[in-house]
Amino acid sequence: MWVQKEITLSRHPRGFHIITDHIIRELPQIKDISAGLLHIFIKHTSASLTINEDADPTVRIDFESHFNETVPENAPYYRHTLEGPDDMPAHLKSAILGSSVSIPIGGGKLILGIWQGIYLCEHRDHGGSRRIVLTVNGD
Amino acid sequence: MWVQKEITLSRHPRGFHIITDHIIRELPQIKDISAGLLHIFIKHTSASLTINEDADPTVRIDFESHFNETVPENAPYYRHTLEGPDDMPAHLKSAILGSSVSIPIGGGKLILGIWQGIYLCEHRDHGGSRRIVLTVNGD
Amino acid sequence: MWVQKEITLSRHPRGFHIITDHIIRELPQIKDISAGLLHIFIKHTSASLTINEDADPTVRIDFESHFNETVPENAPYYRHTLEGPDDMPAHLKSAILGSSVSIPIGGGKLILGIWQGIYLCEHRDHGGSRRIVLTVNGD
Repeated sequence: MWVQKEITLSRHPRGFHIITDHIIRELPQIKDISAGLLHIFIKHTSASLTINEDADPTVRIDFESHFNETVPENAPYYRHTLEGPDDMPAHLKSAILGSSVSIPIGGGKLILGIWQGIYLCEHRDHGGSRRIVLTVNGD
Repeated sequence: MWVQKEITLSRHPRGFHIITDHIIRELPQIKDISAGLLHIFIKHTSASLTINEDADPTVRIDFESHFNETVPENAPYYRHTLEGPDDMPAHLKSAILGSSVSIPIGGGKLILGIWQGIYLCEHRDHGGSRRIVLTVNGD
Repeated sequence: MWVQKEITLSRHPRGFHIITDHIIRELPQIKDISAGLLHIFIKHTSASLTINEDADPTVRIDFESHFNETVPENAPYYRHTLEGPDDMPAHLKSAILGSSVSIPIGGGKLILGIWQGIYLCEHRDHGGSRRIVLTVNGD
């Protein structure tokens, strides 16, 4: 069984945002799968996806602070500067965090640890809406 | 063909550890698969998985040193500090390295390069045991 | 439907290189798949794969500069130094960027965003040719 669906996430401000419930709502077919995988892919190079703690919101604030510190704007070695100071760091952060996550499905549910949530990582100041491809494969 | 199994890895000290043989022992079904994929997922936000050199043990020591240098404890910008100085860095390291790896299966074996091994990356001082979901899909 | 194929990429200089067209040429079977996934795996621990902007070539130059800055050669804490100053950084960069990417397939095509390309990330000065395993699964 394959399910594939492209969805649009409305504009999120720069930072890290939990989208777990949004993704699950889009995929009622998960409840029919006893064993499988969900693949989530973002069709952009300046926003990314990861999995991390979904409880204390200060974790997401610290993610934004940390990546701004280690992937700074206006680094003297950047040559790709025409699209604004937030653009090249956004490309680098996307590659470090990744453009997809995949999560096991078992017993009709996503198998996530108790503290795990899916993050949309918006690295641009004005990233606009973002397109995501959801692919489910399972029995 | 789908095989899915949740296993527990006993407590490992903070650092990088090779778990390739442990994973393979859990999945005798791999030998029946001519083409497929193994997906390995860790159900935690302060430990992660990656693939890297499994020969010289100093590589794993250098991994620990490097990530401690670039994702420091007690960074002045951290707000999520209540769970101890090793907690927020553990979340960041997990996101950078990732919560899953996937590896091709061919001819009844995991297809890994000659120097590649699967690493459990334990980012907490006292992380305890860790739960891992193994999902195999193939023909 | 499963397709699996191991290919060799000829030697690329240290840096970031777009290999999207090369991969697509190797997999004419993609055109017969209405929904599926392509998994690309590199069998090495000092080169990696990622997805990022394939338009302006200065983006790839900035990738090389940035990773050289944040994963330096000759860090005082490295113990794994016998294989040359570019070796340990190559292992670290590989783990940060990752040894695989997976991309949805839909309507007989890879589903990539308009600016997305597949990067081979060569982290060694003299990495030689690189072996890649392509695994396609779909309906």
